[in-house]
Amino acid sequence: MRIFITGAAGFIGSNLADHLLTVGHTVIGYDKLITGRMEFIDSALRNSNFKLIQADLLDFDTLREAMTGAEMVFHLAANADVRHGPEHTRLDMEQNTIATYNVLEAMRLNNVPAIAFSSTGSVYGEAAVIPTPETAPFPIQTSLYGASKLAAEGLISAFSEAFGIRALIFRFVSILGPRYSHGHVFDFLKQLRSHPESLHILGNGKQRKSYLHVSDCVSAIMTAVERAPDRVSIYNLGTDEYCEVNDSVGWICQTIGVNPQRTYSGGDRGWIGDNPFIFLDCSAIRSLGWKPRYSIREGIVSTIEYLQANPWLLDSRDDH
Amino acid sequence: MRIFITGAAGFIGSNLADHLLTVGHTVIGYDKLITGRMEFIDSALRNSNFKLIQADLLDFDTLREAMTGAEMVFHLAANADVRHGPEHTRLDMEQNTIATYNVLEAMRLNNVPAIAFSSTGSVYGEAAVIPTPETAPFPIQTSLYGASKLAAEGLISAFSEAFGIRALIFRFVSILGPRYSHGHVFDFLKQLRSHPESLHILGNGKQRKSYLHVSDCVSAIMTAVERAPDRVSIYNLGTDEYCEVNDSVGWICQTIGVNPQRTYSGGDRGWIGDNPFIFLDCSAIRSLGWKPRYSIREGIVSTIEYLQANPWLLDSRDDH
Repeated sequence: MRIFITGAAGFIGSNLADHLLTVGHTVIGYDKLITGRMEFIDSALRNSNFKLIQADLLDFDTLREAMTGAEMVFHLAANADVRHGPEHTRLDMEQNTIATYNVLEAMRLNNVPAIAFSSTGSVYGEAAVIPTPETAPFPIQTSLYGASKLAAEGLISAFSEAFGIRALIFRFVSILGPRYSHGHVFDFLKQLRSHPESLHILGNGKQRKSYLHVSDCVSAIMTAVERAPDRVSIYNLGTDEYCEVNDSVGWICQTIGVNPQRTYSGGDRGWIGDNPFIFLDCSAIRSLGWKPRYSIREGIVSTIEYLQANPWLLDSRDDH
Repeated sequence: MRIFITGAAGFIGSNLADHLLTVGHTVIGYDKLITGRMEFIDSALRNSNFKLIQADLLDFDTLREAMTGAEMVFHLAANADVRHGPEHTRLDMEQNTIATYNVLEAMRLNNVPAIAFSSTGSVYGEAAVIPTPETAPFPIQTSLYGASKLAAEGLISAFSEAFGIRALIFRFVSILGPRYSHGHVFDFLKQLRSHPESLHILGNGKQRKSYLHVSDCVSAIMTAVERAPDRVSIYNLGTDEYCEVNDSVGWICQTIGVNPQRTYSGGDRGWIGDNPFIFLDCSAIRSLGWKPRYSIREGIVSTIEYLQANPWLLDSRDDH
């Protein structure tokens, strides 16, 4: 199959591209290489079935042209930064909402019949039901990031209804593992490299969060692509456990062999729109036969091992 | 209070402007006068407390400047056409989603502390629970219009969380009454004026729909402005009844004294994304002490009487 991946040089996109190439598909990667990295597609670029188009999703004409002949779109490109939304309110709307509109419109004009989309558990806001199922009570948005992904979900469903596009929408917990380059494990590891004796934690450390290893994320997506029964299918993706930020800190410190003094910014939220408890009910995707191979702890350890083996990544990015 | 109304020359916006002026507020109306009409603000324009700015919400600099000094925003401007979304997919996103983003960003930069927003029962898609409460199961969008309003709701809630803006979100059923100029009563009346002996109906006529008179809509909005307890408050607005399209046709024909041959396009939906059953649970807004004065039948009769007294409106617009 000829597959089009947006954000193909990003964390999840590049892992997905590698998988799709391995099983024999042709992959057109589309990435503007701002947060995406050439290093992540080293191996893909050596495969003659892979092509990279370096361009912006907001450049509609380029996008439309690039998508010619595609049989399915995996739309992974996004501004994935939840925390700093209020500092640049336009970013989530442009890179998540309008970009998704452009992807759908390009699909419509190119008659591409199917899309898989990386949404987020953040669309549940502060969920009224935990573990949170896909049919949770209609949520109120608490972050610009969540709002922009919710908007994208709505566009995808409406395009599906109007034009018969098959849609798979995945609401991710935080994803970890090889090529992870953004989030609390990254931030903590950077801190501990520069001052192993102290660690500053946003919030009170008791925020309860969920994580999934990227290889489990990719296998869940592929399971749904093969088996999801509905024209619009929505799946939470996570493990059946959660951890406290403090648990995660403990595993990180143990793995790298440090014992820092912990300080806390305080409060039950790390930042505006931070969700103090994220735990998704993933029975729907499990009912298709998928299950994760990594526990949260194993995912965090795998991530640290990856970052320790790839210190250029820690060095190459500014703190957020 | 100095109040800023987007869509002030539109159907609901102009009714709201008249009310706010009557009770002594200063009103800045913002309207690009594409679907809005100068005739609707005849009386407002004679009030020295009213000012109209003819401009587009997509012109951010003008919007920002126009909003200077406003103490509350009523954001009514929208592309209100549910039916033709698939023919111009960009319209709903620009005029509903991006326009709402611009309103919020202008509010943020002008420190405007409160917004009231006209959302729609269409955000429930084909609701799993009827009558549908605000906390219905997380819906799947079935129209580009609903998706664009859902996106706007999400933006409003997220801005509220990030910047402390008070938000009132109203999910309307279809609104009827004076200055109504779009929808099935309008379309049927136009048909019957040109050929009283026949009436063509989209769908099978059995679609069950809800309507609310615009004066009841305005009183509900004002009740919530005064009494809504939460920073983000979401209210369904409708009556506690619904009717079939065929009922509505009967009342229309009876009121104007015709007995046309009815033909049907067939199927349980009038168009792609049409919802065969809309009936909202309005107990939340009723718990604030509001109730509607018009039944659906009375609202439809009032609308016909208005249109018969204002035939220029029927003559002046193309069929959609």
